[in-house]
Amino acid sequence: MERVLIRDLKAHVGKEVTIAGWVDVRRDQGKMVFFDFRDRSGMVQGVVLPKSEAVDAAKETRHEYVVSVTGKVNVRPQKNVQAGKLNGDIELEVLRIEILSRAQELPFEKDTDINIDTRFDYRPFTLRSQRDHDIFKVQATVVDAYRQSLIAQDFTEFQAPSLVGGDAEGGAAVFKVDYFNDRTAYLATSPQLYKQIMVGAFERAFTVARIFRAEKSATTRHLSEATCVDFEMGFISDEREVMATLERTIRDVVETVAKKHADVFERMGVPVPALGDKFPVLTLREAHEKLGVTPEDDMTPEHERNICEWALKEHGSDFVFITRFPTNARAFYTMAEDGTLSRGFDLLFRGLEINSGAQRIHNYDEMVARIKERGMDPDKFQFYLQAFKYGIPPHGGCSTGIERFTMKMLNLGNAKEASAFPRDMNRIDLLLSQEGA
Amino acid sequence: MERVLIRDLKAHVGKEVTIAGWVDVRRDQGKMVFFDFRDRSGMVQGVVLPKSEAVDAAKETRHEYVVSVTGKVNVRPQKNVQAGKLNGDIELEVLRIEILSRAQELPFEKDTDINIDTRFDYRPFTLRSQRDHDIFKVQATVVDAYRQSLIAQDFTEFQAPSLVGGDAEGGAAVFKVDYFNDRTAYLATSPQLYKQIMVGAFERAFTVARIFRAEKSATTRHLSEATCVDFEMGFISDEREVMATLERTIRDVVETVAKKHADVFERMGVPVPALGDKFPVLTLREAHEKLGVTPEDDMTPEHERNICEWALKEHGSDFVFITRFPTNARAFYTMAEDGTLSRGFDLLFRGLEINSGAQRIHNYDEMVARIKERGMDPDKFQFYLQAFKYGIPPHGGCSTGIERFTMKMLNLGNAKEASAFPRDMNRIDLLLSQEGA
Repeated sequence: MERVLIRDLKAHVGKEVTIAGWVDVRRDQGKMVFFDFRDRSGMVQGVVLPKSEAVDAAKETRHEYVVSVTGKVNVRPQKNVQAGKLNGDIELEVLRIEILSRAQELPFEKDTDINIDTRFDYRPFTLRSQRDHDIFKVQATVVDAYRQSLIAQDFTEFQAPSLVGGDAEGGAAVFKVDYFNDRTAYLATSPQLYKQIMVGAFERAFTVARIFRAEKSATTRHLSEATCVDFEMGFISDEREVMATLERTIRDVVETVAKKHADVFERMGVPVPALGDKFPVLTLREAHEKLGVTPEDDMTPEHERNICEWALKEHGSDFVFITRFPTNARAFYTMAEDGTLSRGFDLLFRGLEINSGAQRIHNYDEMVARIKERGMDPDKFQFYLQAFKYGIPPHGGCSTGIERFTMKMLNLGNAKEASAFPRDMNRIDLLLSQEGA
Repeated sequence: MERVLIRDLKAHVGKEVTIAGWVDVRRDQGKMVFFDFRDRSGMVQGVVLPKSEAVDAAKETRHEYVVSVTGKVNVRPQKNVQAGKLNGDIELEVLRIEILSRAQELPFEKDTDINIDTRFDYRPFTLRSQRDHDIFKVQATVVDAYRQSLIAQDFTEFQAPSLVGGDAEGGAAVFKVDYFNDRTAYLATSPQLYKQIMVGAFERAFTVARIFRAEKSATTRHLSEATCVDFEMGFISDEREVMATLERTIRDVVETVAKKHADVFERMGVPVPALGDKFPVLTLREAHEKLGVTPEDDMTPEHERNICEWALKEHGSDFVFITRFPTNARAFYTMAEDGTLSRGFDLLFRGLEINSGAQRIHNYDEMVARIKERGMDPDKFQFYLQAFKYGIPPHGGCSTGIERFTMKMLNLGNAKEASAFPRDMNRIDLLLSQEGA
């Protein structure tokens, strides 16, 4: 019998159907056995009546057993209806159970709230929890909605390389790779230089890239390997056009996620991000003034949280742009607004920077001068500099950290929770101290 | 004046507009200067009449200068109309030119057919050629259409890690990474183990991943870093269901690309891939019989080409599946059909394997036994094995190499041509011997 997805059972009331999935919950009440069966589309209650030929198999199954179940779809008695829940008004009267795959004893119950390291140690199992399911369903939508918004805005996607010849950004700690013939390669800390090159060919380009940071850091916002969506666009008059494109994209993403995953926000007790009429924009100096603190060259994490509270209160927005950071504090390719302040910006979301961007230098001589000014060797940038040598329009772009965006979207406590397979100083899959390899 | 995209000029006949883009071609005829201007949307001819105030700027510009051009959109005299070409019936009478960015002397003309190494040495420049533009526009569509087809088939996208703890596939040469605290990490040769883990949580999962191969190989099909789209699906009865899902996806991709990029196939003189009614399926033994050669354990490149010619001639399909490879010749997690033959398959496209897949082992004990049989240590797979320990359905999946798919879609001579920034034994951006870094 052809398999019916659990979310479609409602259309088969009164009929015999076959579903396939996992035993999410099993309650053996002696004469009767109750189940929650789970497949990719949802859950349904199953009941094995005393005389069902499924009784033996039902007694044998345990949580996470994989089964194919044939049964009759019944309407629940009115008093047992669970309103607002998928299949809350039906149940499956189980006629036959076929065990497709067994599970060993579980380390703990699937949806138990356990500490984060244990959760990661058992990731292949904990990914099945409702919470992780919700997080990564939302993340998949975030990434796709982000891409679709950029494609609709005439951006061309490209595949940025992870293996690079040097530490381009100059600063971030970089992982070294043993390359061929005793050469050293590096893992990209950003697709920045490549997306600027793509502006020369496609004007508007974006990439979903893996980035790698070897910083010895163990904060809740740090990952050794992360995912970013980077875009870059030509023919801008200033960084405000980049910010406008980013704002439109973020709005598209939030609206798509809110629509598609209303149940997740409800289940996790998290409000849908507030977009306001327009994301407020403050210069760094204005932000410090608003907070009544001494102006500095950057925002502290506390300042970021406080200014976001201000933005939500005053502008009904969970997002706020901060601009005019000192040029010296930004990457070498950042265009200066005047002597000391830059055309860079950060986008803060619920207290955390999730995006950083800028208008870039586009003049070849200026770029070479800036590289030298930063104590770097233009010869090491000869590939990148070709983009400027052969005519590149005024351009700018930005980068969103997907784990951070997901983290704040769902108010998670740690960016690692928004990485299906998080890597940090001490962990690649398992803690490095316990890893077999 | 607001910028008008070149593809939209037709709607502004008789009006004054401003465009922005590159000087693609400039022909100085003394009194008059003719241009082809290029932006992300297309090209248009511009003409500077003797009395135009743009004359000085026109004389100053060179190829690849970036300009903003204000002019009047005129209908061309009937005799000058270039039928079937974008803007073949209009031209821009140039009134003013503003130079936004200059270009130095070009190393060669943009669309010159030059040798492949030079093309890569000057990649930031050669990416602007019509040919590369076409290749990477098609590639962007391939990747997006592939994803959208899988999403429509209820697959969940995830981000697979590039940093891994060991060489999981056992065999392919692997790049080593200096990780924290003198540990060694590796670059993933495949997202295989992670997508199987995802089956346990989402049933159907896919990822667009970067993969890394340290093989000392310099063939036309080899890249040290490549892009793959990998999917994996649960609750299958055998590998035929995976093949059917793949076939549907490939058909969706080819149809989308054919529709969106008809001009590219025409320009490159390449036929749109033939899909036939159904992709033919041959066992390895049948394939060798068809070719009249001695049965072997694998296909040689020549056999792959010949069997594709057969498929096109007999079934009107540029694609052909080969099945029943010896289990010993496939990755450790491949399910055996019987003692020696596997449930693996390859998909060949125009003479080249672009996809490889299989039904996988899903029983925990069987998987552990297979790992031992291959001389590997199950302890090193303890993270991966959790997926099997805690109940995983019968499943299978496959992996498509995006550069190879693009290469054959457009009949390119080398997979590197389908990588925007190719890496091989001798090259990361520039040849490693000439690199500044």
